[in-house]
Amino acid sequence: MLHQQNIGLQRKMSRYWGDIVKKLTPYEPGEQPKNSLLLKLNTNENPYGPSPKVMEAIKSSVQESLRLYPDPESNELRGSIANYYGLTKSNVFVGNGSDEILAFIFQGLLKKDLPIFFPDITYSFYPVYCGLYDIKYKTIPLDAELKINFSDYKKDNGGIIFPNPNAPTGTPKSLDEIEELLKINKDSVVVVDEAYVDFGTESSVNLVTRYKNLVVTQSMSKSRSLAGMRVGFAFADQGLIEALSRIKNSFNSYPVDRLAQAAGIAAINDKGYFTKTRKNIIEARTFLEKELLEMNFETLPSGANFVFTRHRIKNGNEIFKKLRDSGILVRHFNKPERISQYLRITIGTMKQMKQLISILKPQ
Amino acid sequence: MLHQQNIGLQRKMSRYWGDIVKKLTPYEPGEQPKNSLLLKLNTNENPYGPSPKVMEAIKSSVQESLRLYPDPESNELRGSIANYYGLTKSNVFVGNGSDEILAFIFQGLLKKDLPIFFPDITYSFYPVYCGLYDIKYKTIPLDAELKINFSDYKKDNGGIIFPNPNAPTGTPKSLDEIEELLKINKDSVVVVDEAYVDFGTESSVNLVTRYKNLVVTQSMSKSRSLAGMRVGFAFADQGLIEALSRIKNSFNSYPVDRLAQAAGIAAINDKGYFTKTRKNIIEARTFLEKELLEMNFETLPSGANFVFTRHRIKNGNEIFKKLRDSGILVRHFNKPERISQYLRITIGTMKQMKQLISILKPQ
Repeated sequence: MLHQQNIGLQRKMSRYWGDIVKKLTPYEPGEQPKNSLLLKLNTNENPYGPSPKVMEAIKSSVQESLRLYPDPESNELRGSIANYYGLTKSNVFVGNGSDEILAFIFQGLLKKDLPIFFPDITYSFYPVYCGLYDIKYKTIPLDAELKINFSDYKKDNGGIIFPNPNAPTGTPKSLDEIEELLKINKDSVVVVDEAYVDFGTESSVNLVTRYKNLVVTQSMSKSRSLAGMRVGFAFADQGLIEALSRIKNSFNSYPVDRLAQAAGIAAINDKGYFTKTRKNIIEARTFLEKELLEMNFETLPSGANFVFTRHRIKNGNEIFKKLRDSGILVRHFNKPERISQYLRITIGTMKQMKQLISILKPQ
Repeated sequence: MLHQQNIGLQRKMSRYWGDIVKKLTPYEPGEQPKNSLLLKLNTNENPYGPSPKVMEAIKSSVQESLRLYPDPESNELRGSIANYYGLTKSNVFVGNGSDEILAFIFQGLLKKDLPIFFPDITYSFYPVYCGLYDIKYKTIPLDAELKINFSDYKKDNGGIIFPNPNAPTGTPKSLDEIEELLKINKDSVVVVDEAYVDFGTESSVNLVTRYKNLVVTQSMSKSRSLAGMRVGFAFADQGLIEALSRIKNSFNSYPVDRLAQAAGIAAINDKGYFTKTRKNIIEARTFLEKELLEMNFETLPSGANFVFTRHRIKNGNEIFKKLRDSGILVRHFNKPERISQYLRITIGTMKQMKQLISILKPQ
């Protein structure tokens, strides 16, 4: 078996690879099962479909004009996002999902002589980007409560990046705390990755007009139910946006297709649907947190559409397997040791949370 | 005025830029005019809309499932493309337009100790990628007839890349010539960029099973009328495909959105529509070539959906301006000097070609 695997790997390798390919350890996304009967609580997707207005906007853009390239600058989409947050278009960048934007940020704003800092337990794509662009980094351990403590970041650095709320822990930092960090860290870029911000965490968006070294990234994948369309955006001073534009125009001038631009515009404009689905998810999270507590789980405070939780006695991997055998997929990270007992559970509908609880409950 | 421009530039710059951003000279795509009354013959889009089956496939994919991430490996799309060309899925890579795939190829397969080679007059994104990834390159002059001559490429190199047919000249190389090159160039990767191959140039796709250093890239933007959807693909030995996958999974695991995957599958499967629209375009090109000859233009032989042409007497920039004043946009490259009299004209419908000719004809 092992022998066969080695042959398989050899067959896949090639003497033509560049050095960077040999060194890479790619990111591994959560499982996307073919079996659609599984309840997917593993990749933090929204349990509600996109707004009906978004579906309508996409359908009405399916026209002969798909033969033409999209607007390379996504002007209307950037304008809509800027308008929503009371900023100007020159403060907004959009990309093919926030992962693409993070890649541009790492390449263009975080490759410096000094190492960049991020938490030891965080979005596992960060060290992958560092590998892709040969960026030095240093991980800063979360504190004893698995939270980010900014006083540990008060050292010379090439940049700082963290998700707010953090992933996979879900714990939020307050706006005051972030502003404190920005006041003491003025010589390098600070990136606040707000993929999950809309579920009860304060956004730092409005700080970008005051701090020229701040980048805030957001995503339409979670709170706007558009993971399938790949639309991410970033906010910053126009000097930093210009840097991202230069990278984009040296990589792929047309990153966001016509239908994704149309979907994004309709999604940002339908505030009613966004508010309603977000409220439902926060209510389902509150309900799940209460039930988990009663079942002897310990759950970190969450400002996200997921919770990070462990049972005080039972083994995390066994709970993961039991759930999978019962048709529910959650995320379990074997490493590092410190979080190996935790499960990251995406918040679904109230009905889905009840289904989850019925399996977790002792028989 | 100059003073104001400098202030504008300064406002856009930032002390937080990484070194790479300062050095970049981004690609400049052809103009995408807001005025939809202009006849766009400047960015090689297809004059026909996507196949009705493609439009239908997209519309029927606009569902609640857009809340879920797309298949990160685009398995069904890769399978359809492989099937079309009689290859296996492990020989096929897909991306967010072939520009994204070219970027991955430059980063993963063309960054070597030796300089890579490409023509001096070619797709102007190639030197931009070299800037983005700090890749050494050497341009090889086209011959006196503005054609690629492979005997000029017989030197040690870090890789070779060229479009077939070449852009913006449109001239094709035969399959025999490309195989000759592959026989003598075995130590580095050879990339054949076939963005325009479907309009009368022989594809090298079937050579990938015999040459482990060959990568062939194609696009759905032109011959499948899907520039607005961003779908590109590449063919190679599975060792090279694995390299591209590693880069992709270290950059953005979900590059192709759900609707783009659905569109791509339907487009590759509708061979009838593809054959018909391609035939129309080749006929319109033949017609235009004949008319240009009669009007004292000199046109390079084209295997693309555009022609590269110059008037034997009249100034290229003046013809460009005259066309623009009459509502027709073509592409004119001021540099290098050697091609400054040429215009690159996208082939449209027969009616559009007649409209163009009526303006070019001496009054």
